[in-house]
Amino acid sequence: MEPVAAGLTTPKGFLAAGLHCGIKPDPEVLDLGLIYSEHPAAVAATFTTNRVHAAAVRVNRERVASGRAQAVVVNSGNANACTGARGLEDAHTMTRLVAEQLRLEEAEVLVASTGIIGEYLPMDKIEIGIAGVAGALGRSPEADGAISRAILTTDTGPKVAAARFEVDGATATLAGIAKGAGMIAPNMATMLCFLTTDVAVDWHVLRLANGALGNSPVRPGSRTHFELRDALTHVTWTLARKIVRDGEGATKLVEIVVKGAATEDDALKVARSVADSPLVKTTLHGEDPNWGRITSAAGYCGAQVEEEKLSCWIGDVLVFEKGEPIADVRERAHAELTGSDIRLVLDLGLGTGQTTVWTCDLSEEYVRSNARYS
Amino acid sequence: MEPVAAGLTTPKGFLAAGLHCGIKPDPEVLDLGLIYSEHPAAVAATFTTNRVHAAAVRVNRERVASGRAQAVVVNSGNANACTGARGLEDAHTMTRLVAEQLRLEEAEVLVASTGIIGEYLPMDKIEIGIAGVAGALGRSPEADGAISRAILTTDTGPKVAAARFEVDGATATLAGIAKGAGMIAPNMATMLCFLTTDVAVDWHVLRLANGALGNSPVRPGSRTHFELRDALTHVTWTLARKIVRDGEGATKLVEIVVKGAATEDDALKVARSVADSPLVKTTLHGEDPNWGRITSAAGYCGAQVEEEKLSCWIGDVLVFEKGEPIADVRERAHAELTGSDIRLVLDLGLGTGQTTVWTCDLSEEYVRSNARYS
Repeated sequence: MEPVAAGLTTPKGFLAAGLHCGIKPDPEVLDLGLIYSEHPAAVAATFTTNRVHAAAVRVNRERVASGRAQAVVVNSGNANACTGARGLEDAHTMTRLVAEQLRLEEAEVLVASTGIIGEYLPMDKIEIGIAGVAGALGRSPEADGAISRAILTTDTGPKVAAARFEVDGATATLAGIAKGAGMIAPNMATMLCFLTTDVAVDWHVLRLANGALGNSPVRPGSRTHFELRDALTHVTWTLARKIVRDGEGATKLVEIVVKGAATEDDALKVARSVADSPLVKTTLHGEDPNWGRITSAAGYCGAQVEEEKLSCWIGDVLVFEKGEPIADVRERAHAELTGSDIRLVLDLGLGTGQTTVWTCDLSEEYVRSNARYS
Repeated sequence: MEPVAAGLTTPKGFLAAGLHCGIKPDPEVLDLGLIYSEHPAAVAATFTTNRVHAAAVRVNRERVASGRAQAVVVNSGNANACTGARGLEDAHTMTRLVAEQLRLEEAEVLVASTGIIGEYLPMDKIEIGIAGVAGALGRSPEADGAISRAILTTDTGPKVAAARFEVDGATATLAGIAKGAGMIAPNMATMLCFLTTDVAVDWHVLRLANGALGNSPVRPGSRTHFELRDALTHVTWTLARKIVRDGEGATKLVEIVVKGAATEDDALKVARSVADSPLVKTTLHGEDPNWGRITSAAGYCGAQVEEEKLSCWIGDVLVFEKGEPIADVRERAHAELTGSDIRLVLDLGLGTGQTTVWTCDLSEEYVRSNARYS
């Protein structure tokens, strides 16, 4: 596995396009994209667990069960969520329009929408737009750039990652694009991520590939399987960090490492509690080594925490050791917070549970950008 | 029960004082307070559930088990939390110094500390301060004002509430003071609230009274019991709303009403999820009727939510009804958000579970005040 700079159509057999169809007001900003596989592709997907979810999620949940798809249409600027029966019909219409353009079965087309909740899609604009993206499909850096931008909402720029690996003497590529940036937690709404790969792999194994590479299908446990897994991990990990770094108003990428927890589940509880604490996030924004907010967030999350066994580091600086504060570390701890990449470590001293979570700081700009979104 | 403007020493037999002893830098700002009952008082308390808690909480947990106390010493500017063995010793020392001044048993003195976490108390200043507050104890509006200010941290002003009610032909008073404002959730850390009453009541029934009124002890289920309960509800409800309204950087008090939930627990989950959502809180700050963030927060909290049964109101304006958005309500919904008091209502349409929760908006000022706290 080797990280490479490549776009969504670098894997063989994939085409893409993106354009402005008029969902967003600024004509310079893309708001409709299409991803197309020349061959029927194995497909798999993970969806939000939110009980209130976009119409597109309902459509896709049914369709990915077949394990095969050939196109994904995506719009930004409008989530088509909380739009009731009409919203569901609009989502179906989007896939039907794509199917007509590309001569596919409607069931082979998936759909995604992101943006404002509670407003109906401008279907007249989208219908014209779908004819446009279908006609503009290409396999080029321009196409890669257009599709990566067409899915964005408040992101400051596109998020792309890719990796390649050898399969039966040929070079396979796995590529991905993603958008954040304000409502990732919990469980991914309304983050979007699209991955393509040209390796042949059954959807039970992967899931999302078109087999254009012509290899024998990847067997579970084979070397190719592990190469593929490593490429997938690299691409998704890279996209995840890019999303967090581009969080609304974010100025710092914060890595939170929890170890020594009684269980893995406790480690995740503590890490998420620290990552989600507005008090911790504002303290980090201010580069203020006010670590009591970190230990406090660990204490209230419901995980087993014993203060006299708890230790905390800001960067490499130990600030709290087994229930006792460390003297005269304020300046050094502050220095660890001045960069754009911050690491916090909590050792609960109770067991072997551990995890790593990323978050960002909370700035005035976050408030400004979200106070007047709609 | 009748609400009255009264202070902590209005109930007979209570004295109080507050002064600046030097924990906080500004000599105009009070940072040490003392509440004293001339008679041994029935006492009861509720503490944070945070596993990481101040030394004072450990001391008090043991002492309130006796059901009796006669003094509470409080400092602000330093929470004496995450301070290990030395912190616990300092908390004990504070109660011993008060006991010596007031000729009490150490076990009859409680202690509270609020402010920065992870720094040791300046015990030399506190020792001098305790002698000062013990000497300054009084029963007057000045004393009431001093104690109500001495417990504050980032609060913009004191929070006081009181009620009176008839008992055996005499007038009893229940009074309270509280401080917020940044770390109330979850479960009260590091909110402080002190209540006094002169009614005679066993601590099993109430708990915190000194009996100076001379009434026969309140019997459970008696009319006095209900009067007392109503007074307690009024005082704590008033203080709770004052705390929320004075949340750091808050410009709006937001009441979130959830009804129709499958269970009471689900109602609380939904209400808290909406109340804690940074996206909802910033939207309210911007007076933007972006109600999709409200329904989304309801959807991800783990409670049973069925989108096609869910309805949502901003103020009196229905914006989402049983899964369908209401057309052309944006301007009217916006108008409901322009005041300093906002009401959001969610009807889950599933059962009879209901609750009301208060929160505030999230402003740039919240970020500024918390980015450089320590």
